[in-house]
Parts: sequence; C-alpha cells; structure tokens
Amino acid sequence: MIEVFSVGGYEAVGRNCTAVAYGNEVVIFDLGFNMERVVALGDEENVNIQQMPVSELRQMDAIPDDSMLRDRRKDVVAIVSNHGHLDHIGAIPKLAGNYNCPIVATPYTIELIDNLSRDSKPRLKNQLLVMNPGETIDISKNLSLEFVHTTHSIPHTVFSVLHTPDGAVMYANDYKLDNFPQLGEKPDYKRLRQLGREGIHALIIETVRIEQEKKTPSESVARALLEDVLIGREHESALFVTTFASHIERVNSILEVAREMGRKPVMLGRSMHRYSTLAEKLGIIKFPDNLEIYGRGKTISSFLEKAKKNMGKYLFLCTGHQGEPGSTLTRLANGDFPYIINPGDEFVFSSSVIPSPINQDNHYRLSSKLKNQGGRIFSDVHTSGHASKEDHRDLLMMLRPEHVVPCHGGLRKLAAYAELCSEMNMLNEYTNHEYFLGQNVHLLHNGQVQEIE
Amino acid sequence: MIEVFSVGGYEAVGRNCTAVAYGNEVVIFDLGFNMERVVALGDEENVNIQQMPVSELRQMDAIPDDSMLRDRRKDVVAIVSNHGHLDHIGAIPKLAGNYNCPIVATPYTIELIDNLSRDSKPRLKNQLLVMNPGETIDISKNLSLEFVHTTHSIPHTVFSVLHTPDGAVMYANDYKLDNFPQLGEKPDYKRLRQLGREGIHALIIETVRIEQEKKTPSESVARALLEDVLIGREHESALFVTTFASHIERVNSILEVAREMGRKPVMLGRSMHRYSTLAEKLGIIKFPDNLEIYGRGKTISSFLEKAKKNMGKYLFLCTGHQGEPGSTLTRLANGDFPYIINPGDEFVFSSSVIPSPINQDNHYRLSSKLKNQGGRIFSDVHTSGHASKEDHRDLLMMLRPEHVVPCHGGLRKLAAYAELCSEMNMLNEYTNHEYFLGQNVHLLHNGQVQEIE
Amino acid sequence: MIEVFSVGGYEAVGRNCTAVAYGNEVVIFDLGFNMERVVALGDEENVNIQQMPVSELRQMDAIPDDSMLRDRRKDVVAIVSNHGHLDHIGAIPKLAGNYNCPIVATPYTIELIDNLSRDSKPRLKNQLLVMNPGETIDISKNLSLEFVHTTHSIPHTVFSVLHTPDGAVMYANDYKLDNFPQLGEKPDYKRLRQLGREGIHALIIETVRIEQEKKTPSESVARALLEDVLIGREHESALFVTTFASHIERVNSILEVAREMGRKPVMLGRSMHRYSTLAEKLGIIKFPDNLEIYGRGKTISSFLEKAKKNMGKYLFLCTGHQGEPGSTLTRLANGDFPYIINPGDEFVFSSSVIPSPINQDNHYRLSSKLKNQGGRIFSDVHTSGHASKEDHRDLLMMLRPEHVVPCHGGLRKLAAYAELCSEMNMLNEYTNHEYFLGQNVHLLHNGQVQEIE
Amino acid sequence: MIEVFSVGGYEAVGRNCTAVAYGNEVVIFDLGFNMERVVALGDEENVNIQQMPVSELRQMDAIPDDSMLRDRRKDVVAIVSNHGHLDHIGAIPKLAGNYNCPIVATPYTIELIDNLSRDSKPRLKNQLLVMNPGETIDISKNLSLEFVHTTHSIPHTVFSVLHTPDGAVMYANDYKLDNFPQLGEKPDYKRLRQLGREGIHALIIETVRIEQEKKTPSESVARALLEDVLIGREHESALFVTTFASHIERVNSILEVAREMGRKPVMLGRSMHRYSTLAEKLGIIKFPDNLEIYGRGKTISSFLEKAKKNMGKYLFLCTGHQGEPGSTLTRLANGDFPYIINPGDEFVFSSSVIPSPINQDNHYRLSSKLKNQGGRIFSDVHTSGHASKEDHRDLLMMLRPEHVVPCHGGLRKLAAYAELCSEMNMLNEYTNHEYFLGQNVHLLHNGQVQEIE
Repeated sequence: MIEVFSVGGYEAVGRNCTAVAYGNEVVIFDLGFNMERVVALGDEENVNIQQMPVSELRQMDAIPDDSMLRDRRKDVVAIVSNHGHLDHIGAIPKLAGNYNCPIVATPYTIELIDNLSRDSKPRLKNQLLVMNPGETIDISKNLSLEFVHTTHSIPHTVFSVLHTPDGAVMYANDYKLDNFPQLGEKPDYKRLRQLGREGIHALIIETVRIEQEKKTPSESVARALLEDVLIGREHESALFVTTFASHIERVNSILEVAREMGRKPVMLGRSMHRYSTLAEKLGIIKFPDNLEIYGRGKTISSFLEKAKKNMGKYLFLCTGHQGEPGSTLTRLANGDFPYIINPGDEFVFSSSVIPSPINQDNHYRLSSKLKNQGGRIFSDVHTSGHASKEDHRDLLMMLRPEHVVPCHGGLRKLAAYAELCSEMNMLNEYTNHEYFLGQNVHLLHNGQVQEIE
Repeated sequence: MIEVFSVGGYEAVGRNCTAVAYGNEVVIFDLGFNMERVVALGDEENVNIQQMPVSELRQMDAIPDDSMLRDRRKDVVAIVSNHGHLDHIGAIPKLAGNYNCPIVATPYTIELIDNLSRDSKPRLKNQLLVMNPGETIDISKNLSLEFVHTTHSIPHTVFSVLHTPDGAVMYANDYKLDNFPQLGEKPDYKRLRQLGREGIHALIIETVRIEQEKKTPSESVARALLEDVLIGREHESALFVTTFASHIERVNSILEVAREMGRKPVMLGRSMHRYSTLAEKLGIIKFPDNLEIYGRGKTISSFLEKAKKNMGKYLFLCTGHQGEPGSTLTRLANGDFPYIINPGDEFVFSSSVIPSPINQDNHYRLSSKLKNQGGRIFSDVHTSGHASKEDHRDLLMMLRPEHVVPCHGGLRKLAAYAELCSEMNMLNEYTNHEYFLGQNVHLLHNGQVQEIE
Repeated sequence: MIEVFSVGGYEAVGRNCTAVAYGNEVVIFDLGFNMERVVALGDEENVNIQQMPVSELRQMDAIPDDSMLRDRRKDVVAIVSNHGHLDHIGAIPKLAGNYNCPIVATPYTIELIDNLSRDSKPRLKNQLLVMNPGETIDISKNLSLEFVHTTHSIPHTVFSVLHTPDGAVMYANDYKLDNFPQLGEKPDYKRLRQLGREGIHALIIETVRIEQEKKTPSESVARALLEDVLIGREHESALFVTTFASHIERVNSILEVAREMGRKPVMLGRSMHRYSTLAEKLGIIKFPDNLEIYGRGKTISSFLEKAKKNMGKYLFLCTGHQGEPGSTLTRLANGDFPYIINPGDEFVFSSSVIPSPINQDNHYRLSSKLKNQGGRIFSDVHTSGHASKEDHRDLLMMLRPEHVVPCHGGLRKLAAYAELCSEMNMLNEYTNHEYFLGQNVHLLHNGQVQEIE
Repeated sequence: MIEVFSVGGYEAVGRNCTAVAYGNEVVIFDLGFNMERVVALGDEENVNIQQMPVSELRQMDAIPDDSMLRDRRKDVVAIVSNHGHLDHIGAIPKLAGNYNCPIVATPYTIELIDNLSRDSKPRLKNQLLVMNPGETIDISKNLSLEFVHTTHSIPHTVFSVLHTPDGAVMYANDYKLDNFPQLGEKPDYKRLRQLGREGIHALIIETVRIEQEKKTPSESVARALLEDVLIGREHESALFVTTFASHIERVNSILEVAREMGRKPVMLGRSMHRYSTLAEKLGIIKFPDNLEIYGRGKTISSFLEKAKKNMGKYLFLCTGHQGEPGSTLTRLANGDFPYIINPGDEFVFSSSVIPSPINQDNHYRLSSKLKNQGGRIFSDVHTSGHASKEDHRDLLMMLRPEHVVPCHGGLRKLAAYAELCSEMNMLNEYTNHEYFLGQNVHLLHNGQVQEIE
C-alpha cells in the first residue's frame, strides 16, 4: 500500500511538499518556500529570512509544515526535487536537516540547492546526489527513482517516477508540454507513453494553469513575440528587457535577438548573474563573446556611467519583471543609477505579473515611475511555463494513471483538475480508466494522508 | 466671457483644482493633494511630505500645477473649497500662499484647513472665511459666491455657485443626492430647481462614479447594512468596525448601532480622533456619554491592556479601512498592541477598497494577517458618497446647464460624462438644451483654458 | 450507516437532487430542472419541454439522472422539497412517477408542484403531503422528517431534517439568514441551536454564493434600496418595476412602496399572476384593494391602451428581469403593446442578472431596446436570497455538524465550501469538530454514493 | 479650410463613416454596417436586412445617419473604403445611391463591394473604381487620393491620403503594423515616413485596441500558435479549424499547416467559400491542388457522408468562430450533418470572441454543445488585426500629424487615444507637435462637423 502525504502546496500556489511512503520507506518530493506569505504577513518588507525561526515560517505557511512526518523521519530515504524554483527547493536549507538522507536532483537543480545552502546556518549536511534525465537509481530496498525529461521555465526539469512493488508513482510538478523548445529537447514522449502502457499507479500533478481552456503556447511563440517587438520595429533609444532570471531558455532567446539586432548584450542584476553563470558553467547556455554581466549595484553604476552616451548600442537584460523593490529596473526608475531615463526609452517585459496584490502593486509602482519619465512599456512578451487544461488532457491520455492527486494550487484549482478527470470519462477509450472523486481522484488539504491501495 | 482653467484633476481622480475667470477676476476652486502619486512614485513609503519641495510634488502630479496661473496671480480674489477631503484641500498649505486672497468654505471645511495648515511652514497667511450653506457673499466687484447645501461623505458639503454678469457657474465637485441622510438634511432641491429656472451658464461637475449605471444608494442603506451585520446577528467576540474618519454621518450611525447593541463605543486612531472631535466641537455630531476616544498608540495600548478581558463589551471604531500602514487595525494585526486577536473576532469594513493597486495590496496584507489569526471579515458594509450616472441625470434635469465641464477623473471618466450629455438629447423636453461635444460639452486635459462665451 | 446519493446539482447550479438512504429506506430531496441547459444545448429556443423525452433531458443534464436509483426505486419512501423554485421541483412531473411515494413540502411549495403537474402527461399520481415548518412526521419505519423554518427568496422555505437511528441528516438547500425579513419570521434559530446541541450527523448544504466573503444583506436592505430609488426621487414618468415573480416578499415591498408613492399598482405577466395569486390564496400576502393583475398579453394590451394617457398614476410590476423573450418587458420594448416608451420612462430592476451568457445576452438586448427609446434603467435594486460565506460560517457554528456534504454548485463552489470547513478548524472551540477533506467533508460529482458511518 | 464630418462610428465600434470636405468638394470614407445593432434591437434574429427600410436601419444605428450630408450631396466626389470589412462597406448598397460619384478601393475591396451589391435592389449604379496601393489619382479639381499599403486582417488594406491645397488628410481606419506578415508585404514605412516629413495636416485614426498597452503581435505569432497546437501535438481525431472567412492570410497559414501535417484541407461554409475564391481569383492566395471547398449545406452533407470513416485524413476549415447560428460548426454541433462528433475530436478557434454579449452567448452555446459531445476546444489561437497603443505611438512618431481625429470606437476609446496624444507631448522631439484636447486633438460624437484650419 502506498501513502501520499500532502505536506504543503495543497491550499495555495507555493511551498510544495509531498511525501510518498511505501511501507517504512518514504520519499519527500520538494521542500519549497512561499515568499509571498512572508511579505504579506511580515511587519515590514525587509525581513531577514535567514534569521527567522522555522516555527514562525511554519505559522506563516511560508514553509511546509513537516511536523506531520515527525514519526517517519527515520524512514525518509531521499528528498527529490524535479526542478530548481524556490517554491520547490527554497525550504531545503531550513528543513532538510531533519532528514538523514541524500537530496536527489538534476545537475542544474543541485547547483541551485548548493548555492542556496551556502548562506544557511547550520550548513546543509545532506548529500547532494546528481542524477540525469533518463536515469534510474535504487534509493532503498524497495524503491527506485527514475527521471524523465520534460519542459518548464527552468533548465533540467524532470518528471520523477518512483517505482514501487505496488506500481509506479509519478510526481509531475511543474511542467509544460513544449514541442518547439528553443533550448534543449521536447519532453520524452516515448518514455511517457511507455510508462502509460506499463501502468502508472498514481499521478501527483500540478494545477497552476488548469483553469485555462487551451494549450500553453510553446517557447517558439515567446521567441516570435520577442522578435516582433525587438527586431520588427526600428528604434534607437535605450532598450531594457526583463525576464525571470532562472528562465535560461528565454535569456538565450533574448541574447540571440540582441545579436540579430546588432546590439551588445549586457546583463544587470544579482539573480540574473547567478542563474546565468551557473547555467553556463554546466554548458546549458553558451554566452556570446561580447556579453557583459554586472551583478552588484556598484558595477552596474560604473557601467551605466560609461555607457550612457551610447545607449542605443546595447540591449540591457535585467531584473525587475515583477517590480521587485531592490531590482535593477526599480533602482533605475528610482534614479539610483547614473543613467536618467530618456523619453522614448523602451522597457520590454518578457514576463507576466504573477497574480497577487503584492506583485500587482510593485509592478504598478514601477510602471508609474517609468511612464512618468517618458518610458515606453511593452508588456506580456511572454508564454507561461505551466501546462494548461488541454496539455493536462494530453498527458492523461498518454499516462492513463489509475489514481490522480492534484497538487500545487488552492482547492479550487485542485477541484478544476478533478473536473478534468470527470470529463476524461468521455474519453475512456483512450485512458482505460474511469475517474471518480474520492475513489481514484483525491482532493487533499495540507496535512492529510491518503492511502492508495 | 468666462474662462475655465483645468489646473488639476482632469487626468485622474485626485488633486482637484479648477479656476474660473471673469475678466480680471479669478476664483480658484480647490487646491487638492493626490497622496497616491507620492506613494507610487516615491522611493520609499515613509516620505515626509512637509519637507518635499513644491517643484517635486508638481513633477509627481501630487499637487496641482498652478504655474499656468502665474500671470493671473494678482487677479485671484478667492480660493473656495466645497468640502474638506484632502484631494480638495490638501495642497492649500503648499500653494495658497501664492495668492493674496481669502479661503472661503463651510465651517467644518475651514476647521480642517486650519488644522492642516497648523503644521505647515511657513504658516498659512490667507484669511479663512467661514460661509454657511444658503448664504451668498460678494467676493469681488463683479462676482458673488453662493453655497447650496448638498450631501456627500463628509459634513458641510456644498455646491458653489459663482454668479457673474455673464451668468452663473456652478462647481459641483463632489456630491451625491442622498434623500434619506442619517445626519443633516437632503440636498437643497428647491434652490437647485430655482437655479435651473434662472439659468446655469456652466456646470463644472465631478465624474468619479459616472460609469455606474444606477443611483448611488442613500446612507439609509449603509445604515441598514450596518444593522444587518451588527444587530441582526448574535456575537460575543471582540468587534472592530472601521470606516473613513471624515465620514461623520457613518461614524454617527455606528455609534447609534453600538448603543442598540448595548456595547460601549471606543474610538481608536489619530485621524478618527481628529475628525470626530472637530465635528463635535461644531455641533455636527453629538457623542454618546460613554464614548471613549484614544488617538495615539500609547493610549490605545493602555486601553486595550485594560479591556482585553472583556472585549465583548465594546465596539471599537478604528482607522485602517484601506489597510494603511500605521493605522490602528494594521498595528493590531501586526501584534503591536497588547491585545492578541482571538479566532472568531469580527472585523467590519464599513468602506470599500479605493481602486488602486496600492490600496488593494495594503488591504490584502491586512486581511491576510487578520484571517491568519482567525479573524472574521465583513466587507462592503458601505455605500458610496459619489453620484452615479442616474443621479447625474437627475441633476442635469434640475439644472439644465448651458455648458458642461466634467472634472475629477481620468479622461475616460470625463468622456463617460460626455456620453451622458449626449444621451440627454433624448430628454431635451426636460433640459431645454441640446449638448454637443466641443460645442457646449468641454473635455479638458490638465492645464488647458476653455473660453465659454 | 447512512448513504448519500449525489444524483444531481453537484457539477453546476441547477437540477438539484440528493437521496439519503438509511438501510432500505430512501428519501429523495428535490427533483429540479435546469432550464439553462435546454436553451444552451437545444437547436432552437422554442423547445417544448413537455414533449421532450426524459432520455433527452437527461443527456442534456437538464434533469437529474436518477437511473442510479433504479435498484432502490421501491425503497423510496418520500420525495421532499425545501422550497418551490424550479431548480428544486421542476423535474417532479417528469420523474416523480418513478416512485410510489408521497411528495412532502410546505403549503406554498405543494401548491406550486400541483400547479406544475397540472399540464403534465401522464398526470402526477404521487400523493401531495402538506407539512408546516415546525412539524415532524414519521415517514417510514425508521425515519421521521422535520421542517425547520428558514428564509430565502420564496415563501415557506425550510430546512429539512431527517431523523434516523444513526443521527440527524439536515438538507439545507437553499437558504439565507435574514434577520430583518419584510414578510414572515426570521429563521428558527432556537431550534437550529437545539439541533446543534442534540447533534447533526450530516449537513447537506448549498454553496451558490459561498465565494462572497461577506454576509448576504437582509431584505430590509432591498427595501431601503427600493425606497431610495422610488420614494426618494421625484418623477412623473411611467414606472416599470421588475423582479422574480416567486419572490413574494419583494413583491410585497414593491406594493407597499407603490402605496407610499400614491401610485396604483398593476401587475403584468403570466408568472407574476400565477405566483402572486397562489400566495394570496394561502394568506402569505395581502393584496392592496386597488391592485390590478393582468396575466395574458391580450389583457395587458387592453389595460395599457386605457392607461397610456395617465402613466404617471401607476406603478407597473412586471416580468422580464432577465430580459426573457416573451416576458412583459421584452414585449413592451419590442413595441408589441399599445404603449410606446417615452424618453424618461423609468425601468427599475429589483433583481440581478443570473450569471450565464444566455441571461447576459437577453438582458443586454432588453437594455439596448429600452435605452434606444429613451428609457432610464436602475439596476441592482436587489439583495440575494443565498447565504454568503459569513452566513455559512454562522450556521456551522450553530449546527456543528459531524459530516458536511456541499451541494448546488460546480465543483469549484463545493471546494470553496470545503475551504470554509478547513478555516473552521481555527474556530473549533465553537464547533467541537475538526474538518478534514475526504474524512468528514465530502466533495462529490454527480452520480456518486457516499457512505457516512 | 478642411471640415471633418463624424457621420458614424464615433460612439461605438461599427458602421464607420467619415466625410472630409475641402470647399465644395467632399469625400466620404466608408459606409459601414453594424450588424450587432440589428440583432440587439430587432424583434427576432432572422431579420431580412435587404428588406429593412433605410429609416429603420438608421434609427437602430445600424447604418450611418448620412442625413447630415443632405445639403452636400452634390458635392461628394468619391466614396472611398480602405478595406472590405462589413463595418466599412456594408451600407454601400443602402446609401451609395444617394451620391452620384464613383466608389474607389483596392481590387479585393472592390470585388467584395461588387459581390455585396449584386443582391441589392435597386442595383448599385455608382462606378466601381479600382486603385492599387502606391497609386495616386486626381478625384476632383482640388483633391487627389493616394493609397498607401498597410496590414490588417483582410487583404489589400490601405491608408487613404487625401491631398488638399491645405495639406494632407490621412484616413487610417483600420490597420495593424505587422512586420512579419505571412502573406504580402509589411506596411510601406518608407512612404509613411516621407509623408511625415512632408506634413500630415490631419490624421483620422481607428482606436479599437488603443486600451491594450502593448504591441499587437504579428501574424508570425499566429502562425507559431497554429503550428504549436496542430503540428506539435500527435492526434488522429477529426480536426476542425475555424477563423474569420475574410482573413485570407490566416486561411493561407492554416492551409500550409495542413500540408505540413499531411492532412487534406477541406473548406466548409458559404462565406469561407466566397471570400476565398474571390481572393484566389485575384491571385492573392494560391490554393493547394488537393483543396476541396463546399459552401452550401447540401454539399457539405454529401462530403461528410463520404469522409466520416476517415476523418483523421482531413483538416476542415470552416465557419462558426463566433458560434453564429447557421454557421457550419453550429450546424455540425446541432447534428444537422451526417457526421456525429466523436469524443476527442478537436476544434481549434483561430479567432477571439468579439466582445459583445450576443457573441459571447452564441459562442457559449456552441462550446457547450461541442463539449457535451466530447469535443476538445483550443481557443485563442489568434492575434488581432488592430493596432495596440504602442503601435499607435510608433505611427504617430512616423507621421507627426498636426491634427488628430480618433474614430471607430465609443467615446471612451476615443478618449484613450486622446490620452496617448497627451503622453506624446513627452516625446515631442520626435513629433515636432504638442497635442492639446479641443485644439488639435478632436473628440467627436456622431453627427458633428469639425473645422480644421
């Protein structure tokens, strides 16, 4: 019998954590952080998360409440993360020490975990175990772990498959099905179909964009949007492009567009520097020879001081897509750097505003400042990294899981996934299964244990 | 010939200022402040507005840019405000000194201006001239000023009518048509209809809720909503009610409801203290004998320390309806006071969230904190103080103005008012006028001069 | 052991049906109709529902698919409806014949069922059993049925309580908690609290407005809104008020307002005629002496022909609040009656648009026609008849049910109710219960059987 | 002096008509039809527009009210349309007969006008004058007309430039700036910039998507979206794609995608047949050899009867993107054709729902029917044909017009364009002009005359 523990991420997007037990062997998938809760509930914005006690972060729902696993601590044989976003790995420095087991992930994810844990006290003691997509390892007496390549908005994302004597449990959080990726391969459909034929006992699956009744557009569409705004139009003004620092595929597209435009690319901002150089180190991205990168405010200032007379020669790729206080764009708009925005300067947001009043406020303040100085804003030059409803339907038709546990969303998102399962009953010549709520489709709150026979 | 100067408030809600000239005699209506711009464009939230130079506030569109009146400074014979909200009087301390003329307003408005200017440097030198609704005074050789009583969400609100040799100009910013007010009288319809018959040459009119295709509900509806939530239900928990501190009519309703509930009313927060005590001083409101008021944090703490064992005996009326940082509710939610929120405590918002991402974020953070501690929230126990489309239509049918200048909104709101004027042409048996855009309906940006023959 | 059958109404608002079994005794609650499905899926609007076969209506999800009860037909001891709206009783003519048992309901509901079944073929054979709020009857060997008075938007609404040897099952679909009703009494809180103390084993509860984070305002607020628009303002034009024909309490308020205005009330439209005269027959409403009622188009025409020269003397209360084709207002707007709309005529919608593209389209077409002829529209002079989130919370604190089965909404509404249950765990000093999804909070699709031990 | 007559399309999207006069020579731009008004205001949907009198259509605002030109009829020297959408040419059969002058347009537009007028009685007598992009002709003593190539969602769209002794007047309604068109060339920027240098006296410009703060994506993005949904995914089910029949560029992309998929393309529906064959006749599109086209219901039925056993071999391109009653998709969903929808069949909407409650209702009914039969829906595989705010800004920077007259939208859209003009004052180093409302930015209602000196 398999047990699924809905430790975190079942009542809101963020701080993911699901544990799967087979007998007395337990695997933890993700130990994520929900920064938004700290900002919303904290007294001030400038909270020092490093120094906040675990108990306070738990009370805020900022990290998973793994106290439900207290009696099973010794049973935990591995902590696994499918990819390196903070809502999946961010609580590792705070919580992994509770478990005497390795952390298993793909190379880029392991680098990010290592990077994250460098500042943490006490230092992280868990072994960091690198595993590549396509590989399978035994992680305990009864369990083996397989990584299947998929696509998302960060490199080296996989589906994890936990093979147990009772069947395979797939953890699919997060993913998109991108058939025209601009860096790397499309998902390993061959293996996915094969797993479907072999039989997936249970599928634990993200639901972030389940409510969109469409297919999530490929990165090829984001590329076309970037070319449309940047290459298609004539412009001589200063040009600032911002995107998610961890979205290396997008960063690569922007660098390639800069080349086509004949503009010299310059990266600005700390997280832009960190995520990109780690990706280059692993050979995920190849930087153009003329790229310059400035992470800290001081070096950004020096560069802008020199560049400000020839701004039309550069494409600046910088942090600030959500209007974060402290980001490069926000500081530029505040006048903290030696470059004063000129009317007609262009600001391209290769991103969307993550829907929370906090981000919407930050974005509004940044936009107000940019416009007040004559800046032009190009929004939504972007496609999402999360599967929409029709992608989920495609995946269900491939995998034909016996049981489904939706995760990574508020209960209304989980319920929307259950509605999809119900709709799938019209397509059961494809899936071989009928889905019934409470029977083989399991909606869980945080902190429940679901037995799956 | 009459000239209308659209100094401020024609491109967004806030910082109102319109000047009306007849020959070389000029009257300024309102010198308002737009706090939202300072928050959005400022580097930090804790800006010291007192010390910000006028030039910077102008550049931010936080105060009216009255430089367009530079050549007419000596011509200004009066500064007039219809009521005492900050977006109408807030820039007086900064700008009134440019004009050597009295400030004319109703008693409560004058008190608020006086209060506001106490902290300003240099001290305000303009004469403060109190005038009551129903009165008319000569303010220059050719001009006389009349105040006509109306209703809004602050006491002593009037329509100003400037009688000129070329006809009457009415400044109607802001108002609602409340026929069941809970404190004071309904608008002076008799005089309004008489003015309509005598002839209104030009009407300058607010547009804040023109897009609502309805009548704005009376304060009698807000009263019914309050009774519904507070008296109708049984509850023994702590009870916090928040509303606009300047909304004395609502404050009075809440105090009366407290009496019906048998709970002792306690006011908490600085602006709650200031606006209410000024209103009581002028006899606008009569406080119940058992009312206690605590303005400063220290006294609030002392009181809560004593009260915390018997919270069910009190109704707390406090600041924080927009989730403002520093307000009583926010500080309570942050744990700054000696009372810890109990699960089941009730928080009644007799207000709506003013639609800006900044307020929405503040409100979201406050709500998150309250809910995270088990607080129950009752929202929208409120009716607006601004006329909706059908109120505006009623007023146009009474006043039948020859010319119309919509103000106090972005251009899209002004345009919606112009659409109403266009619709009025079907009702011209009531109005005697046909309205044509650019002919007798004038849409203005900030900083324009409109001649009206 | 108790079994709950989610026959219908668990995937959308409409066509309610829940069966509850104790051993081999089954009670069916509601056999509702979902007209919207017939309109959306039918080939034309003018479908003849009387002649549509049951199989087709089932395939359209227009009536409950009670085939899941096929093996239990002989076990059904009663069909019970809490109130007389069509989404609760509309399928009785089509389906009740499958069961050899009485239909039990309050007097007004029974009248409506009787009325409905008069046109059906074959004639309804089930016994119609009238039962009053406050009464309890034995309906089988082990089961007794109690009706507890509550409030909603139709007279004689109750909560049903099925007393079984394993405990009480309450069916609470639909209701609001109105503490200031304008006709009749407020809910029987004394009995509700007593039931809470005695113990409610399972609560089956509606979720239509669970997503509103507030208290649903009382009918006293609707009354204040009506007075505000109708009595507060001066107007001499023709005046048409429309509301839900079955909402007798609202109808009564409108008639009383007409009296205060000194206008003669005239009811127009077939359903207005039917619901009102049935209510008068039962003594629920007392008509004013001067009321005239015209149901059929011909008589409406005759009356308008006579009245059209003195329209200012009447208040017309008519059908058409959703812009339904064939309703009095739609026909008036189409020019089918001898009265031509005059610019300035007023149309008061004491209703809200039921959120479906079909209603929104109908309402838009009606509004367009009215405005195109100079009509003035006053919208949303209305409060809802469904409990909002804070009402649901109040009820849970009174009833403290062991198990909860949310119904009457799409899965996302049901999930929102489950979220409320989860929040209630912070208030467990009030409820004595902790709620866990899948454990004692049961989310069901249509067509499932939930065992409750 | 130039006069601009805002005949129609200044209060809503639809039924465009603007006249421009220089002395006693007048040119009419567009005589459009607004079908939506007929549907909203008509008694039934199945109105016969051919037989509706002009007076009734005018009263409904369905056609331009050109009675304001009555005294100038003899002065009209030409009727010009920039492109062939019905909201620009649809009223020509009804109104062009009032003017004894030629109709001037590009080849495809002329074909559509000719086609439209074939059914009208009395037959259209005006001369149809074909003119190509890049050409200029003298149309009267003082006036010459130039067509400048641009892009939109129908072939052969131009900007019209009317050269007068007082300067050039450009009519830019509708357009997008597509720099990666998939059929034909991008806009003639060289000539646009040259016109900007020569001087544009007045620009009359559409505002349909002015409220989108972005650049409208190119057709290359629509192509990428189509490939993503159609080529990227594996599927063997029946495949129906629907789009605007007049959008030949999109039709071409879909045909090319069909080829890449190895599916045989089949066009279904009357307007699909008409627009495509006219485009092929003019050499705008080259049909693939294996294309089959069926316009009438009977031939569609025959084909589906044959094809139904091998649906996986075809890509059906059909009408019905707005869920129009009578379209191929609606009839298919209604079961009017011999093919029964199979669960898993795919329906790709290469379109967006035009925002009106009427379309939203139609689309909802169609979607409900498709889903009820197991159909899968892929929405929004589409990019718009209308310029967004940043495109408009780019155009203003090229053209630097002295005067601006926004058109083709409700007053709020026109006002949003005026806001853009106001923002342009920060960019006046690019434009050489300052813009002031009422001075050189003219907001007009329908039926006004604006003099431009």
